[in-house]
Amino acid sequence: MSGNESSAAHRRLNILLNHLNNEEDNNPKEWRTLSPSQCLTICTNRDRKWNGYGYKDTVFKFDERGTAFSTGNRYPNFSSKEFHELRPWLEQTLRINLKTVCPAQPNIIELASPNVNHEFYDAIKPQGIMISFAEQDRLSHGHGISTAEIYRLRHGNFTRIPDAVVWPESHEQVETIVRAALKFNVGCIPYGGGSNDVGALECPEENEKRMLVSLDMRQMNRILSLNRENMYVVVEAGAIAQDLEKELRKWGFTLGWDAEMLEFCTVGGIASLRSNDIKRNMNGDLEHSIINFKMVTPAGTMQRSGIHTSPISSGPNFQLLFGTEGTLGVITELALKIHFFAPRHYYVSIYFPSFHNGLLFLREIVQKNIIKFSSARLVDEAGLQLVNAFNTATPTIKSVFSEVIKKYYLKKIKKLEAGKMCLAAILLDGHDIVKLKGYEKKIDEIGKQYGGVIAGSDLGERMFFVSKRLPYLRDFLLDYYAISDRLDATASWSNVEVLVEKVKEAITNVCKTQGIRPKPYIGARIDHIYDTGASITFTYGFNSRNLNDPLSVLRLIEQVALVEILRSNGSVSHNTSGIGKRKKECFRESLSEPVVKVLENMKQYVFIY
Amino acid sequence: MSGNESSAAHRRLNILLNHLNNEEDNNPKEWRTLSPSQCLTICTNRDRKWNGYGYKDTVFKFDERGTAFSTGNRYPNFSSKEFHELRPWLEQTLRINLKTVCPAQPNIIELASPNVNHEFYDAIKPQGIMISFAEQDRLSHGHGISTAEIYRLRHGNFTRIPDAVVWPESHEQVETIVRAALKFNVGCIPYGGGSNDVGALECPEENEKRMLVSLDMRQMNRILSLNRENMYVVVEAGAIAQDLEKELRKWGFTLGWDAEMLEFCTVGGIASLRSNDIKRNMNGDLEHSIINFKMVTPAGTMQRSGIHTSPISSGPNFQLLFGTEGTLGVITELALKIHFFAPRHYYVSIYFPSFHNGLLFLREIVQKNIIKFSSARLVDEAGLQLVNAFNTATPTIKSVFSEVIKKYYLKKIKKLEAGKMCLAAILLDGHDIVKLKGYEKKIDEIGKQYGGVIAGSDLGERMFFVSKRLPYLRDFLLDYYAISDRLDATASWSNVEVLVEKVKEAITNVCKTQGIRPKPYIGARIDHIYDTGASITFTYGFNSRNLNDPLSVLRLIEQVALVEILRSNGSVSHNTSGIGKRKKECFRESLSEPVVKVLENMKQYVFIY
Repeated sequence: MSGNESSAAHRRLNILLNHLNNEEDNNPKEWRTLSPSQCLTICTNRDRKWNGYGYKDTVFKFDERGTAFSTGNRYPNFSSKEFHELRPWLEQTLRINLKTVCPAQPNIIELASPNVNHEFYDAIKPQGIMISFAEQDRLSHGHGISTAEIYRLRHGNFTRIPDAVVWPESHEQVETIVRAALKFNVGCIPYGGGSNDVGALECPEENEKRMLVSLDMRQMNRILSLNRENMYVVVEAGAIAQDLEKELRKWGFTLGWDAEMLEFCTVGGIASLRSNDIKRNMNGDLEHSIINFKMVTPAGTMQRSGIHTSPISSGPNFQLLFGTEGTLGVITELALKIHFFAPRHYYVSIYFPSFHNGLLFLREIVQKNIIKFSSARLVDEAGLQLVNAFNTATPTIKSVFSEVIKKYYLKKIKKLEAGKMCLAAILLDGHDIVKLKGYEKKIDEIGKQYGGVIAGSDLGERMFFVSKRLPYLRDFLLDYYAISDRLDATASWSNVEVLVEKVKEAITNVCKTQGIRPKPYIGARIDHIYDTGASITFTYGFNSRNLNDPLSVLRLIEQVALVEILRSNGSVSHNTSGIGKRKKECFRESLSEPVVKVLENMKQYVFIY
Repeated sequence: MSGNESSAAHRRLNILLNHLNNEEDNNPKEWRTLSPSQCLTICTNRDRKWNGYGYKDTVFKFDERGTAFSTGNRYPNFSSKEFHELRPWLEQTLRINLKTVCPAQPNIIELASPNVNHEFYDAIKPQGIMISFAEQDRLSHGHGISTAEIYRLRHGNFTRIPDAVVWPESHEQVETIVRAALKFNVGCIPYGGGSNDVGALECPEENEKRMLVSLDMRQMNRILSLNRENMYVVVEAGAIAQDLEKELRKWGFTLGWDAEMLEFCTVGGIASLRSNDIKRNMNGDLEHSIINFKMVTPAGTMQRSGIHTSPISSGPNFQLLFGTEGTLGVITELALKIHFFAPRHYYVSIYFPSFHNGLLFLREIVQKNIIKFSSARLVDEAGLQLVNAFNTATPTIKSVFSEVIKKYYLKKIKKLEAGKMCLAAILLDGHDIVKLKGYEKKIDEIGKQYGGVIAGSDLGERMFFVSKRLPYLRDFLLDYYAISDRLDATASWSNVEVLVEKVKEAITNVCKTQGIRPKPYIGARIDHIYDTGASITFTYGFNSRNLNDPLSVLRLIEQVALVEILRSNGSVSHNTSGIGKRKKECFRESLSEPVVKVLENMKQYVFIY
């Protein structure tokens, strides 16, 4: 990774040109920097909402007839579509009222001026490292996308934000930054795609007098080499997973991840969370696809060895470093396994009479290992309502009629009751669509044992994409006093059902004591299945109109749910979202004392959050 | 793991009874113990050779006609079989001479009396922990099965051996031992199956004045629970893998490892090496099948969490602990993933015109992911000779004739030359033998692209079992001045061939400068294949008759080979055998400085070797 100076300069120039050609960026709200000429070259997050999830061009709205629709043209099956069943469902479930709105604050309010450590600045500046003290850069780097963070942004309740943002362009620049931070007592917060959901990007407020710097890795996004013989790619850690995936597909390869899910994530961010939001049933766990890495730590640069090449190394496995969420160091480079891209996809979906039966079905699918699938999911009755609310078909007399017939068939013939019915979906990837469709029969055979009824490929596909677009719905609901959030967990097969029940019960009870009316929406979804168990994502929402402090209530719900997960022998994260600051306490509780000691020893210097 | 006192007592009683009924054990050479009544209850390694590999009942011999045969009835395809082609091949390759023998010393020679730390003894004795100071226990625990160790045993060159052996019966007893060792400055060496190949069980000689204790885990071999719903078994770490596998098969399950390969290994030993000698192409890497563990460290007991149950935990992955080979602590309990046992097996073997072509074939098999196989191997031309030397068929006129035809066919029709020809074999496991045999056609299609010719299922099976029985041949050869050893490595696909050539060249050269005649035997075998590369085992042998110090030459060969592996960007172990004391220096060299610091920090107390 020897810095190619001229190419870095070229890249900087390109960014600058793009910037000058972009109307919107010509008038940044305020540039309060020590070196404007430098930071002007950097555009970050300018196409994303400053106080909401995702792209500026994509929002939910109600049209004049009260039909929900989404803007933009970014996402197939979603952008510029109408969702006829969404409003009635939201009115019923969360009692939203189109006339009672709670809009977000439209502009950034004045922020405190940055706390600048001049020794640190003088140490990194001569190295040509890009740095910005601009308010909008600092603000956009001071939060992730959790509901609490977005809520605070919408209401102007800014907590402390980073004092500066740095954009290293090489491994050596990261080393310079980390060394300087250590020497001059500056706190560093590594920043990847900015889509962290567990408060990892929040700055500590209390007792923190040091300058805090956000270390944005996205300028380091080069593909360093693609090795087709040994099937791996070496890439800088700041590359956006989705961009890397697009490049790889040109060559017939894939990372094997569900790249669409990771629209903002950098590969370094994914690795540091050992995030499993991937097609792991096909391609294995993410962490096992990391065959080498470079990580800058306070003690120096760590790597498996000089060699990316051999498939398994001698001695201990350094996967301990993954999942530490940037607290031990900054990943700058990764060698990642690649797979041949399978261009055909087919979804199979099946209704089940109960969540219990759906679970038995999924367990058999994964443990018996008969069908080669990429991903399998299950939504409970509440989750199924949500999937149905995202139906984009315009109701016609014919479709309404066929819906009635379908309901009658499911209820009378198949004994599936609307209030209890669940939906499972399986994603198949391969080279031959006929072969993939052929699996449907095998899946149906297993499904039938548990009262399953095949429900069509479109519905399966919708089930998968709905979960990806929920953050947009979450922000939309905030406009109508409805607050929603999510929480992930894992459990062994024998515990899944009881854990789901207990968590739902706990959330329902705490909402009741907090005076929330109507009772909250709580959906459970199985996202990933293993031989030994499954991961579960809870999605919950409630009407906050009569609450004084909705965020404390949200926090209370989360705490109660986390305690219930631990009590039910679950694990408090599936590493999809991570631990972060949000689940810190209960994570520590679930570790044995020597494990905590090992981690503390590895850390040595408390300078990276 | 609360100690069940009465069952432990019952077990002790059974061991005692067995001991009293066993003629051979009634007259141990010498019992020099502080508490004979206790240690009398313990029989360890009594059915194994004291100065060679494996069981006493299994040895190679030449009969009066000079035909090699093996004794015993333990191993199918091997025990009590004649190997007609073995002697001629050994005579030609290693110039062994039936009349020039170098027999092993038959009896244990007087050893130094043990260095007893009485405070340590007084701390563990009242807890009912079994301890022995008997010479044969100490000796049998003071070595593994590497050629150097066996050679020293055969010639009475004992290095320092442990001063005592302890057999804990529970996690709590291990905690007591480790605490006492720490408090009273005693060195501990964890002992599993005793089949370590890299000197892990050797005692350090220089500057080590402390009492050294071997901690034999094999009394802790209970299956604590079998969870069929969540597909895992919880077992004490001292259980022999093969015994556990037998129990699991009664219930229709398997560990998914090649248990026969692990005839002496404990599951704790395997985990501490993260040994990959398993059917990993079917069931994944061993380390990923560890879903929870307990490890006693100087800092206390470490475990993933209180929960074995959830499939993936939050935060970092503690697989770092596996592969540390007992240096960080003693594993006492493991929760291991299990699989449904596939009762049918089928081997496919294919000749290839060169090692190069065989490698291309294996790479395509693993990367294209078309066939579901358990294991795949490739032997080079020298390895093929070795496989052929293990032919157990008695030569008849008919068989000789068909052999001639076969050779003609391979040479003239298929252009396969005897001196360059290699053999690949693939093991298929499943439920339906017809289906498995059906894969042969697919494999043949891929093989043909690289000039492959199907060679029959029997030959494939022989290729797999030969490697398992080589340690018996190794000992047999020592009787005739022929010294052989093995070394494993990994490399990326693009490096395998050059690494193999370089290592062979280096060994050949060093043998030449050491005056070894004839030139050494060197065989290379691909054992495991990954998307990104493969593991290689080198087996080499030479005639030592005119050498003054054969062990130094053996060490020199090894050093030269290890350097060549590192130079060729290989990794110096596939974790099948591990690093141990044998490869310590070159392992350290291949780590980055912060990684060494992390390991040293984790260790904290240098008391476990």
